[in-house]
Amino acid sequence: MQQFELSREFLEILEEAIDAGNDETIKELVAELHAADIAEIFDELDKDQNNFIFPLLDTEKSADVLIELEEDVRERLLKTLPSEDIADKLEEMDSDDAADVIGELSDETREEVLSHIDDIDQAGDIVDLLNYDEESAGGLMAKELVAVKTNWNILTCIKEIRKQAAEIDEIYKIYVVDEGNILKGILSIKKLLLIPTSDNISKHYNPDIISVRTDTPSEEVVNIMDKYDLVVLPVVDSIGRLMGRITIDDVVDVIREEAEKDYQMVSGITEDVEPFDKVWNHTRARLPWLLIGLFGGIFSAYVIKSHEASLSVFPAMFFFMPLIAAMAGNVGVQSSSIIVQGIANNTIGLESAAMKLWKELSVAFVNGIICSIVIFLYNFIFSDSFALTITVSVSLFSVILFASLFGTFVPLALNKLKIDPALATGPFITTVNDILGLVMYLYLGKFVHFLL
Amino acid sequence: MQQFELSREFLEILEEAIDAGNDETIKELVAELHAADIAEIFDELDKDQNNFIFPLLDTEKSADVLIELEEDVRERLLKTLPSEDIADKLEEMDSDDAADVIGELSDETREEVLSHIDDIDQAGDIVDLLNYDEESAGGLMAKELVAVKTNWNILTCIKEIRKQAAEIDEIYKIYVVDEGNILKGILSIKKLLLIPTSDNISKHYNPDIISVRTDTPSEEVVNIMDKYDLVVLPVVDSIGRLMGRITIDDVVDVIREEAEKDYQMVSGITEDVEPFDKVWNHTRARLPWLLIGLFGGIFSAYVIKSHEASLSVFPAMFFFMPLIAAMAGNVGVQSSSIIVQGIANNTIGLESAAMKLWKELSVAFVNGIICSIVIFLYNFIFSDSFALTITVSVSLFSVILFASLFGTFVPLALNKLKIDPALATGPFITTVNDILGLVMYLYLGKFVHFLL
Repeated sequence: MQQFELSREFLEILEEAIDAGNDETIKELVAELHAADIAEIFDELDKDQNNFIFPLLDTEKSADVLIELEEDVRERLLKTLPSEDIADKLEEMDSDDAADVIGELSDETREEVLSHIDDIDQAGDIVDLLNYDEESAGGLMAKELVAVKTNWNILTCIKEIRKQAAEIDEIYKIYVVDEGNILKGILSIKKLLLIPTSDNISKHYNPDIISVRTDTPSEEVVNIMDKYDLVVLPVVDSIGRLMGRITIDDVVDVIREEAEKDYQMVSGITEDVEPFDKVWNHTRARLPWLLIGLFGGIFSAYVIKSHEASLSVFPAMFFFMPLIAAMAGNVGVQSSSIIVQGIANNTIGLESAAMKLWKELSVAFVNGIICSIVIFLYNFIFSDSFALTITVSVSLFSVILFASLFGTFVPLALNKLKIDPALATGPFITTVNDILGLVMYLYLGKFVHFLL
Repeated sequence: MQQFELSREFLEILEEAIDAGNDETIKELVAELHAADIAEIFDELDKDQNNFIFPLLDTEKSADVLIELEEDVRERLLKTLPSEDIADKLEEMDSDDAADVIGELSDETREEVLSHIDDIDQAGDIVDLLNYDEESAGGLMAKELVAVKTNWNILTCIKEIRKQAAEIDEIYKIYVVDEGNILKGILSIKKLLLIPTSDNISKHYNPDIISVRTDTPSEEVVNIMDKYDLVVLPVVDSIGRLMGRITIDDVVDVIREEAEKDYQMVSGITEDVEPFDKVWNHTRARLPWLLIGLFGGIFSAYVIKSHEASLSVFPAMFFFMPLIAAMAGNVGVQSSSIIVQGIANNTIGLESAAMKLWKELSVAFVNGIICSIVIFLYNFIFSDSFALTITVSVSLFSVILFASLFGTFVPLALNKLKIDPALATGPFITTVNDILGLVMYLYLGKFVHFLL
């Protein structure tokens, strides 16, 4: 298969064919493409164009395209399809994908679509999967897998696998279960090919397996698959019965989403937004953070104004306000993001919170001393007010110390309270840090001025 | 296998056993653990403790542990091992892991270790892999794979696969090549089990394959495997010969690293740093950004000071300086990070740079109008200077517009110049944005004051 690269020219030819209602040209253009490529095309075209192309694809391909589409494009497309058609597509999908797609439908459409699925096993699997929390192993797993019994021999296994495999796209591992469907171990494809067919598998399967429970949170699933380099992970229920398996491609999606969520938080964007999204989506994603920053700024202005009297006898202090506020924000984000990343990667280590704060204090002490010396030297040379020189460097040092501790403490505390620690890198805490930095600066200025 | 959870208590027991030199207890504690868990323990212990435990592991397990260790811990450990020992471990590894480990050694140690590898094929594979750029498909791939010839029948295949499989941990796909080792297609495990053994594979393999070249950049490898949901991806040379294969677990590592790099850039950290790292590592990772911010702040102070004369007739302007600077920085980071994320995920779309800037301008216009109205109303109600009210809202609007465009333009330009666009979210550009925002504010203030 030639790798497909979507281009403006390709889209133009396709759009022309759609305008001309030229089915054959459209089929020629898209029929041979991978579903992921077709989905990419759909993301670029408008609703009517997609509705024109979609029925021209065969059932299997169109089912695959549905899975690959962006959520909003899929939603629009599904609304135009009769329930019978949706049911046909769902029968072609793996159970986990089918459950994801049907999960996006309204309750009544869902009922209707389910009633049209002829394959009763598939319908049952989908309903089972819909019961699990989306953010858990149950929500990630698919029901399709190959399972054999402990007391079979290899030949029986191969026969049974042939039967089961017809339903499944890919075989990664063969699961070994007992009569009660309790997961006992794993047989690798390699073993299956290497050992004599008359051997009983009880001698050959590997009982050392890593599995998760249906209610294991998805972040933990990610960490386990990543840590142990697993391609597929079996999921069991509370008494150890084999319920399904999670494949790495689904976990890659979770990893990307988690990373993006944290990235968006620290860059001040409140929801998923892509460069090609509409203006309104961008505004909605960015305005909240800007408004928080704005109200923080207004509050800063109010704080500064209320110190106007003392500042007017010491006006040089004004010059360094942006510096102090910016440094408070920067230091806070640094400290928080290291903790957030450590929690996400599970590399937070075994140190207690007290030890982490103590270490953070040491780091802040070193950074604070260096930054304060730099600013002290600058003001000592270029400013004629020794009071200013002292105030700015002592404030900067205090602000760095405080923002570091605050930035470390907040995500640790949020995590303890089972709230997403990434919130600590978000607009609210950063703005609080800015303001507190400014307040410290102003009071220190008053104090130093009073002393000298 | 029971999932292992590293605890303080476990470490204490282990450390006691090490102090007592109690080999048997140590073996009991760690021998049954997964290599990834042992590596986690090594990351927590000190050099001498690790050097004590390492020789107690059998060759296969210790090779696996070496692969899983953090780079600095591995480096320390390898320094204490004789070349012969390192060679033994490398023979146990997959070629890609072996190449990664040996790539970290000094040139002379590398030569020496290679000369001690008895398996000449493995030594050859490692040397081949060392030639590829680390950031390319060649640098990610392993040489271990199962390949069969187009003209064989299934029975010959199975025999040959049994022979080849002995060398390989996992079989995901069977590659079909011609006499000249040119990649022709793929045979799935499922097909292998389902079709009659006398059939010729030429009838059954799938010629529609997605492959990359050895010189394909690793980000592209990531995007291809992610987009097409691949677990394993074949790598060919410039004339199409099968050179190796990349598995998804290696790609997951690349995804995580890329995401972390971008995250660190936007949170102002210059290198990989974990919460458990030493104070010095933290300082080194954070101080550069703080110093850039500091110099930016000093420059701001200088700019403000040079406007002192005009500001003194209009001192209320001082109050809103932190607000203007913060908003300029925030808006710039938002705009840049959306572009950076779009480039990383390959969802940047087909719009031209001019269209992106135009859309960004629209978003900035909406956000700017809303924020300006808010601040206008605040000042209109609470301030007695209409000049201030006008200056602050017009400045805020201009600053939001400018920072949006600047924040969009810089990463697009960097990307065009083949420089990492994530740099745009880093300290330098953000600080420039802060300062430019302040300068615009000051000049606008002068201008409005002059007008009214």
